[in-house]
Formats: sequence, C-alpha cells, structure tokens
Amino acid sequence: MKKLLTICLLAGIFATAAAQPDRPTVVSPEIGENNTVTLRLYAPDADAVSVTGSWMEGWGSTVQLVKGEEGIHEVTVGPLASEMYTYNFVVNGVRAVDPSNPSVVRDGRRNESMFIVPGEKGDLYSTGPDPRGTLSKVWYPSPSLGMDRRMYVYTPSCYEASGESYPVLYLLHGGGGDEDAWTTLGRTPQIMDNLVAAGRARPMIVVMTNGNPDQAVAQNEPLAGSVSRGQAPAVSMAGGRFERSLVEDVIPYIEQNYNVDARPQSRAVAGLSMGGIQTMSLSFTYPEKFDWYGIMSMGLVDMTRFGVEDDYESRRHNLGNLRKTNPSLYWIACGTEDFLYNSVVELIAFLESNDFPHTYVETEGGHTWDIWRLYLSKLAPLLFR
Amino acid sequence: MKKLLTICLLAGIFATAAAQPDRPTVVSPEIGENNTVTLRLYAPDADAVSVTGSWMEGWGSTVQLVKGEEGIHEVTVGPLASEMYTYNFVVNGVRAVDPSNPSVVRDGRRNESMFIVPGEKGDLYSTGPDPRGTLSKVWYPSPSLGMDRRMYVYTPSCYEASGESYPVLYLLHGGGGDEDAWTTLGRTPQIMDNLVAAGRARPMIVVMTNGNPDQAVAQNEPLAGSVSRGQAPAVSMAGGRFERSLVEDVIPYIEQNYNVDARPQSRAVAGLSMGGIQTMSLSFTYPEKFDWYGIMSMGLVDMTRFGVEDDYESRRHNLGNLRKTNPSLYWIACGTEDFLYNSVVELIAFLESNDFPHTYVETEGGHTWDIWRLYLSKLAPLLFR
Repeated sequence: MKKLLTICLLAGIFATAAAQPDRPTVVSPEIGENNTVTLRLYAPDADAVSVTGSWMEGWGSTVQLVKGEEGIHEVTVGPLASEMYTYNFVVNGVRAVDPSNPSVVRDGRRNESMFIVPGEKGDLYSTGPDPRGTLSKVWYPSPSLGMDRRMYVYTPSCYEASGESYPVLYLLHGGGGDEDAWTTLGRTPQIMDNLVAAGRARPMIVVMTNGNPDQAVAQNEPLAGSVSRGQAPAVSMAGGRFERSLVEDVIPYIEQNYNVDARPQSRAVAGLSMGGIQTMSLSFTYPEKFDWYGIMSMGLVDMTRFGVEDDYESRRHNLGNLRKTNPSLYWIACGTEDFLYNSVVELIAFLESNDFPHTYVETEGGHTWDIWRLYLSKLAPLLFR
Repeated sequence: MKKLLTICLLAGIFATAAAQPDRPTVVSPEIGENNTVTLRLYAPDADAVSVTGSWMEGWGSTVQLVKGEEGIHEVTVGPLASEMYTYNFVVNGVRAVDPSNPSVVRDGRRNESMFIVPGEKGDLYSTGPDPRGTLSKVWYPSPSLGMDRRMYVYTPSCYEASGESYPVLYLLHGGGGDEDAWTTLGRTPQIMDNLVAAGRARPMIVVMTNGNPDQAVAQNEPLAGSVSRGQAPAVSMAGGRFERSLVEDVIPYIEQNYNVDARPQSRAVAGLSMGGIQTMSLSFTYPEKFDWYGIMSMGLVDMTRFGVEDDYESRRHNLGNLRKTNPSLYWIACGTEDFLYNSVVELIAFLESNDFPHTYVETEGGHTWDIWRLYLSKLAPLLFR
C-alpha cells in the first residue's frame, strides 16, 4: 500500500512537471457514438482556424471552426463513414497538426493528424485483438544501386512458430512516397493481420521497398555527415533502375534471409500510381519472376501530348512474352474520379484488344489512400490461391 | 532513351499534381556550413510567428521570426552544437510542426519537427554508412497483464549471419512515453549501430518495452472497435506490475524467440526517469535476474513532504539482497540542472553509506532527451565486458 501510494505521488510529480497550467484541457478529435467527429483547438490569439481533411470533397477544401468563449475553436463534422482520415488545422493560413492528437502520419513530406472511425473498414485498418505479425525495418545491400538501402518486412503472426515457407507480396508505393507509406497510410500490417485472422487471406510475407532509386532510406531519416543537410528527391523513377534492384537485390536477400517459398507462383508484386508503372514494367521486363500482379490507379498514360509516340510494337511484344508465363492474376483497379482514370481505360482496352486475361475492378474514388487501402484489402485475399 | 523520357515526363505529371502553385518554395530548416540553422515559414496571414526549440534555455522559451516581403517568416539561430534538436513553430499562439520539414518525432502526446546538426554527436545519432541492425515491432503475450502487448526489438547487423547468442539490454522509457520513445527521440538503433561499427560497444540485442502496464501499444496507435475512441493513460506505473511483466513475460519471450545468451551476466536493464524507478525496483525485487544496471535521471525522491515516511529498513534489506548477487555494474547518471537532481544525490549518499559499489556520472543538463541519448552512448560501451 505504501509503495502504491509512493508511486501514485511520483506519477503526480511527472504530471505536474509536464502540465501547462494556463491552458484548458482540450479533447480532439472526439468521435461520437453516431460517428460524428468533433475537432477542437485552443487558440485564443488566432483570427481564423479552419480544418482541411481527407473526408472532404476536393483537395485543400476547408471548413471553418467556431471560436468559443474560452478561446477554444470547435467544429463537428460527419457522421463519417468508417475509415481512416487525415487532417490539418489551418491557423491564420498555416497548416498545423492537432496538438491534442498524438497520431500523426507522414504523406511524402507532409505530416497530418490521423483518426480512425470505427466500423468495418476502420476496424480492418486498426490493431485488432487477434495475433499480430511483426514489422521490421531491414537494411540490405543493393549492389545494382551501389548502396545499402532500407525496406520493411512484414511477417505474419504464425511465421516464427510454424517453420513453414511463405509466399511473398512485394508492395510498391507511389510518387513522392517512400518505404514508410504502405506501413503508415497504407495500414498494411493491420490489414494483413486482420485478413489473415479472419481467414480471408493466406498468411504471407509483405516486403515494402523504397521505390526511389536514389534514396537509401525514407526522406524523414537524417543521414550522418553532410548528407544530413539534404536527402535525395523522392521522385526519381527513371530508367528501370528500381525494377532491376528489386529483382537483383531485394528478392535474393528476402529469399536468403526468410522462410520463403521461392517459386514464381508464390511471388506477387503490386503497386499504386508510380508503383503501378513499376509493376507493369516488372511484368514486361521480368515476366518469369512473378505470377501475381496488382496495378492500382495507373494505366497507359497518353504521352502523345508531350510529343512522345506510343511504341505499340514493343508493348505488344512485351505482352506476348508475359502471356507465355500465363500469370495467375493480372489485377487492375482504379477509381472513376482518378485523374489517371483515362490511362486505365486505355490499359484495359489494350489488354482486351490483345485477348490478355485480366481482372478489372472499378470503384468510386480518386487518387487517394482510402482507395489504396481498400484495394489492398481486395487484392490480398486473391493471392496465392 | 524514349523510356527514360517517358518516365521523366510522368514524374513531371506527379510533381505538377502535388504542387501548390501559389505558394513559394520554402527551405526549412537550412543548416549552414558553420552550423547556424535558418528556419522559415510561409505565413502571409499570420501576425506573430515564433519558434520554440530544444536548443533554448528553459521549457517553452520562444524566439520571434521576422516577416519578409513574400510572407516568409525567418530566423537564424546558432551556431548550434552537434546534436539532435526538436522544435515547433508558434503561429498566433498555436504550435505547428514545420510544414517544410518531413522529420517529425513524437514526445508523449506532442509532435515536434526534428533536425540533426552534423558533427560528433549528430553523426552518432544519425544513420551512418556502416552495416545497420534491424528494428522490429513485435507483439508478445503478457499473461501477467492479461493482454498481448507490443515492444521493439533491435538486433545488431551481425545477428542473422553469425548464428551466435547475444546479450540483451532491456531499455525503459520515462513517464508519458511509450515503446516508441527510445527508437525515435532516443535514437537507439542509430547509436547502437554506430557504437558497434566503431568497436566501442559489444553487439547486443536491445529490447524496448512499453512501461505503462495498462497500454497494449503506443498511444498513437488506433485500436479496433470502441477502444479506438481512447487509449489508456501513459502514466500508470503503480504497483510493480510492469516490472513483473518484464521478468515473467518479456524476458522468457525474448529468450525463446531470439538467439540470446540467457545467463544473468548477459542481461542488463536501464531506464530513464520512471524507467529509472523501474530499474531500481527490478534491482531490489529481482536481483538475481540482471547483472548490469543503468539508472538515468532518477534517485530516491523525498516523499516526506507528502507525509510518506521513508522505509530505510526495507531499502537496506533490499540493498543487502542485491549485494549478494554482486552486480557487474550499478551505474547512475544525472544532470546537475535536473529537477530530480537532489533525489540522485540522496541515492548516491544511500549507496555510499552502505558501501555499495556503484558508478556515478554527473553531467551538465536537465531532464531532457539530449542527456538520455548521451547516457545511452556512455552506458552501452560498458555493458557485457
């Protein structure tokens, strides 16, 4: 009893040291029983506070908060559908994460506050009660790119104990992103844990690489020495260098260091946007390596407006080579509001005109992470069946 | 060549889609050759922009930025010593992370922008050119606390290939923190990688647990279902429940699932602040379990002002039991400006009056992460020698 008392008093000491007594306690976000969401910010000296959030129509839309008597600005939005949402306050024109919300995710170079509205999708994207896999940050040598590089490796909860060999999904991010993206915005560990626990997907290893061949590691990681004064840019997908490093460096490393079923029929690759180009490029350049493909929010972009002629001949040739390997799945998904939607229409037309077997999933939505989380949760159950 | 051109054009499409054409490009932070740091914020509609940073004397101190003609506020600080620094802008009284800086770290519930000034300490805290270990988020069953919980496990770069058994350091965070803290603010993976590569520390496994016994996982991770409406508090160290779970749940899990030298002489525990209390408590309650102890920024807090009598008798008894195990290291470190400094003076006096062998390191500094990174870099080289 004395010990308990002592410790509670000590806890009080820490709490006192951390508190800012002149500020009211603010709860934000507050998710109501009906899935309305109330956002609050203590800002007595701000003239205008608004919020921009991923639930709004149109990038950069804002909703004004109303200033209350104590200097707390507040707005209630929704009810919102079950989903993961990101948002920023805008204080006199400056974006700010919600100081009352510890959850922040990074989208490229931008940091945003995050919350999840419970329900079917929200729970799929959250840490559930079932056994959970391990997510590791792993460094590997990349001789083809001339440096050591970092990636994430997700192993399912049964991995250590079973001693079995597992199939592998190589999962690629989009332009501006890096190896963090599928683990944070993409919620891959949570989605895979929950799908596997529900028996909806086969247990598999998921490897999430950095698709920018000039980056060793995510753009928020300081590097020692002068390099810490600036990282390589995130958009640098030129020349198939990433695709080569995936095949020559990443896959051999994974198959040497993990319990992996190394047959092509146990190897999948999928990606969004830039990662969708890379997936297509891999299917054309290394068709014997993979048996399952997922292309999200990307198709055949019309380059003629830039004076680049389409090379139909080599594209048909590549598709012919791919056809010989008879892939188990060539899966394409796009939202009808995606700014690249027409490129996907073009891709589907190309595949159909060549009688190439494929699966096309068209949904609502644009070029955003809610769509890519949904696509992962639709694609993963199809793999390795 | 055509492929390269195509891809460069595609990169342009993405860049265009992401740009906000009406905003000037802002570089922040910019670290000069002389280690001055220039911070900039585009805020044409803000009346007052200041910055609060970890290089300043006194918690919550601010320095005003000067507004330029284009609406960019700017200040140059330093030259700063080589170190990792965190900061927030304050825009009309509201804290905001730097929108031009992708690096954000979380300290408890607060998110801050981060940069590292190169040099001896900065490089020790950054990703270096040498082989780097693996950092894994691992879920483990905790029967003593009645739930699955998450921890981080760092394995050194030589771990997979060597097949050897490694000693283990259990590293505990402070009040308000969680299992993330030593991996982000503490820079443990970088410090260990760099110390091991330089031959200054033995390769070891480092296990970073969540010291709040009512939390399953860090307070920024949404949990499925209604639980996602709120996490358990971070300050809840009552009753030795964490210490028991470390000994009964964590250590057996680590020793069953990793290549570990399971003898007590290959087991260390260290912690800061609340983690320092827990380390002391472990040394008194489970003296046979560990051989190496590190207590940072914590001592014997004077509870008499709360009406709690010191129980010298049981404390001396505990110390007697600990003495029988003849620990290889009982290491204590504190900064002279720490608000708990007097408690450490008290602890040292208690150990000296009982002729208990110990090592005391007194430094400049207070109750802050720059000190705890320094202490880890001083302690790790002493372990398992």
